[in-house]
Amino acid sequence: MTSLEGSALRLADLAAAVGGTVQGDGEVRVSGIAPLDRAGAGQLSFLAFPKYAPMLVDSRAEAVLVSPELKDSPGRCSNRVIVAKPHEAILALLPKLYRRPARPFVGVHPSAVVDPTAVVDADVCLEAFVVVGPGARIGRGAWIGAHSVIGDGVQLGSDVRIYPQVTLYPGARLGDRVAIHSGSRIGSDGFGYVFRDGAHQKLPHVGSCIIGNDVEIGANCAIDRGSIDDTVIGDGTKIDNLVHIAHNVRIGRLCLLTAQAGIAGSVRMGDGVVMAGQSGISGHVTIGDKVTLTARTAVISDIPSGEMWGGYPARPHRDQMRSYAALAKLPDWMKRVERTLRELNPTREDETP
Amino acid sequence: MTSLEGSALRLADLAAAVGGTVQGDGEVRVSGIAPLDRAGAGQLSFLAFPKYAPMLVDSRAEAVLVSPELKDSPGRCSNRVIVAKPHEAILALLPKLYRRPARPFVGVHPSAVVDPTAVVDADVCLEAFVVVGPGARIGRGAWIGAHSVIGDGVQLGSDVRIYPQVTLYPGARLGDRVAIHSGSRIGSDGFGYVFRDGAHQKLPHVGSCIIGNDVEIGANCAIDRGSIDDTVIGDGTKIDNLVHIAHNVRIGRLCLLTAQAGIAGSVRMGDGVVMAGQSGISGHVTIGDKVTLTARTAVISDIPSGEMWGGYPARPHRDQMRSYAALAKLPDWMKRVERTLRELNPTREDETP
Amino acid sequence: MTSLEGSALRLADLAAAVGGTVQGDGEVRVSGIAPLDRAGAGQLSFLAFPKYAPMLVDSRAEAVLVSPELKDSPGRCSNRVIVAKPHEAILALLPKLYRRPARPFVGVHPSAVVDPTAVVDADVCLEAFVVVGPGARIGRGAWIGAHSVIGDGVQLGSDVRIYPQVTLYPGARLGDRVAIHSGSRIGSDGFGYVFRDGAHQKLPHVGSCIIGNDVEIGANCAIDRGSIDDTVIGDGTKIDNLVHIAHNVRIGRLCLLTAQAGIAGSVRMGDGVVMAGQSGISGHVTIGDKVTLTARTAVISDIPSGEMWGGYPARPHRDQMRSYAALAKLPDWMKRVERTLRELNPTREDETP
Repeated sequence: MTSLEGSALRLADLAAAVGGTVQGDGEVRVSGIAPLDRAGAGQLSFLAFPKYAPMLVDSRAEAVLVSPELKDSPGRCSNRVIVAKPHEAILALLPKLYRRPARPFVGVHPSAVVDPTAVVDADVCLEAFVVVGPGARIGRGAWIGAHSVIGDGVQLGSDVRIYPQVTLYPGARLGDRVAIHSGSRIGSDGFGYVFRDGAHQKLPHVGSCIIGNDVEIGANCAIDRGSIDDTVIGDGTKIDNLVHIAHNVRIGRLCLLTAQAGIAGSVRMGDGVVMAGQSGISGHVTIGDKVTLTARTAVISDIPSGEMWGGYPARPHRDQMRSYAALAKLPDWMKRVERTLRELNPTREDETP
Repeated sequence: MTSLEGSALRLADLAAAVGGTVQGDGEVRVSGIAPLDRAGAGQLSFLAFPKYAPMLVDSRAEAVLVSPELKDSPGRCSNRVIVAKPHEAILALLPKLYRRPARPFVGVHPSAVVDPTAVVDADVCLEAFVVVGPGARIGRGAWIGAHSVIGDGVQLGSDVRIYPQVTLYPGARLGDRVAIHSGSRIGSDGFGYVFRDGAHQKLPHVGSCIIGNDVEIGANCAIDRGSIDDTVIGDGTKIDNLVHIAHNVRIGRLCLLTAQAGIAGSVRMGDGVVMAGQSGISGHVTIGDKVTLTARTAVISDIPSGEMWGGYPARPHRDQMRSYAALAKLPDWMKRVERTLRELNPTREDETP
Repeated sequence: MTSLEGSALRLADLAAAVGGTVQGDGEVRVSGIAPLDRAGAGQLSFLAFPKYAPMLVDSRAEAVLVSPELKDSPGRCSNRVIVAKPHEAILALLPKLYRRPARPFVGVHPSAVVDPTAVVDADVCLEAFVVVGPGARIGRGAWIGAHSVIGDGVQLGSDVRIYPQVTLYPGARLGDRVAIHSGSRIGSDGFGYVFRDGAHQKLPHVGSCIIGNDVEIGANCAIDRGSIDDTVIGDGTKIDNLVHIAHNVRIGRLCLLTAQAGIAGSVRMGDGVVMAGQSGISGHVTIGDKVTLTARTAVISDIPSGEMWGGYPARPHRDQMRSYAALAKLPDWMKRVERTLRELNPTREDETP
């Protein structure tokens, strides 16, 4: 949803749609949403938390959704809709004010280079400079952004959205409704070498990179193909920007991998796992279902299902937080203990580290 | 500054320009700069620190800038300019020996695909295979590198430099004199989902990605657009390679974000903040002005202006360093404390962990 | 090695090639390799570890390599080759079942834009939309993937493999047999500014980015050029995905830099160094030969040759592991020590932190 709808809507109608009460002029019309400090004529904004109330004072928004507690916050904008949860209300109004981005055309841009042996559905949009290799298959509903490269033998399900400048290495397989953001690389060779004859000899990578249905992958990620196994991302898993997934990793369904997370080779991960930002998992580790890794966690051992782990090296989050709290107090505590020990034994040498 | 100037310059003239004294032949001419171990005929090098003096011995540089303490360091290169700070002197000489890279042509490469509704100034350079979407506006002085994609409705100020293979998602807005290095993605959808009906449902992203004046962004970064707020990078802020900035983040003026830093959603950051390499900030945190985060810091709470924080979870740097020093001594200290406690109470059981 | 060989091979012949013993039908033919759970008719799989034995039960593989201990594991696939190390055996068989990917053609794709002053060997493959700048030199045997940009004056040795969407900034120099995966950026400006007149003024970058022979670089890496020094990657070094290498870094021969590693400016690194995933090195640090950094290590000081370091801030791995083990026990141990001290001195105030 990024393109603006043509027609502006009555504030009173929007208020009714979210069960809110109009204060001020319900006849004004809005055609888009913007934050308080950037909204102008014809734009709707919202105030959900007291800490942002100062931004309302000078806001030039046409109208604003406010929570009951904040309805009388001072501000030049007098057209207000009082609603219990302004943040949820604005999400509910989005489909009325914006439409989902649509393919600019159906067909193949004349500049695209499509191998004659590729099988491309008629109902696709291949933008400028797209390259499609021999034997690739692109299902109906695809929208392939400018400059993306679909390698030899790649298979795409239906309704796949590839943003500009993506590379799908030969043999990658994507399910239905997959979305891959700009700059991500799917199916590159894994990092595998054996040291022999004075050099790192490259291990061949003949495995696949298989992306399930409804997977979304952020910008500038790198997901390697398998070596002799496959790399597999389960259905409904969502991946943020700049994430690395190494060869032979198998990720379950409905996982969330946040930005800059990294997963080393041959990790097995269950369903519903959440990796927070900059977390990492060492090679060959097994992660159960519904595990949560807090931000910056570094996992070096298996984790049973349902647990929340954190820190370095990763342990159960609660234990880790106790250790870090103790660490914060450690320098002063060490001194106090040394002092007490000297009092108990005056001949003791000071051993304060 | 990457292209070589045509004419070589007299060493005596260069020495005069930086207030240095020639030792050897001031009539030799140099036309470029190179490190001691790679410099050859016609090239100027420099020796600023004693630890690099061994590299002077066999250096084939035509001439070398040296600090007064190092002027007699042994080496085959006898043409020397003695100057107090050789490193600063060489920076001062750069504009004499190199010229700034200039646009290869003014105009639009015939292979570029520019939508007829885009507004492109006459004084621009759009290199090969550039794609410009409907309604985009490109100001005067722009230099857009090969293969870059300027999405629908993107706005570029004047004198913007986009290196090859950059993607500007629809609606991104860049100020004047912005530079974006190869492979960076500006305005991609943020990582926002709600779990409903057994799946992660995507939250629409209708906010903007707004880049201020004089911002430079390194290679392969990812900066998301806002969801219903905007993502904003303040004037004069500089961003290194592989940095991630999530949706709704607002960064102040003149910040420095070093390589592989990551900022989660809705973070507010003041002016003049320095994030060292691989540091990260959790979502919804507020960082004051002139805060410094040391390398690999992981912030999970607000930080007042002017402080230097470090470690995981982040605390004031000084406190953190004391804790890490104590941690290094902890295993041996634990043993000594246990021994002392046993001496004081011989019946005590050993509790050395 | 990603493309399938045309002809299927006899299982008995494959068994003989690896010194294995056939159990079942040695006359069956296989033409490819797949993991147990995805292998089908005509495909060879393998079982090397007991923990994967359950996957054999329903495997539809045509034949399977098994270790002697596992040869009688239950499973529908009865054609087995018993061999001591199935994993090594399958690697040995790869060249019989797969051929190395070959250039799709020799020559320059008609859509490529090659500057007339570039010197391009006749024995090259430049794929669609490749851009080659003025003065660039491309040696024999090169395979340049679609959309890659070879900047002004770039020099490529022989048999270089550039995957799609790579950017080589002006002046980069690559040796022989270099491979660079999709989306990597070589020779971008480093992150160097001086604060003057209220702004971060950019330091010019006139150094080179020099990549030695037999270097492989993964996907979406960023390797900066030098400022007035050079950035140098030594022969035979291998680099994983999403790695950052800053300006003026000099890396030795035969190093392994694993995914998401980061190296700040002017680091000097010896030969044979291993950086595990997400590790980092601060600026101006010197790392000896054959140093190993464990995953997530953050180095802030020099490391002598031959050592294994880990943690944050990095110390010898063994010391660091002792400290982390002590940290895990610290909260409970603190309580026990406080209790003991109170017993020894009942008037003592509780100082449990």
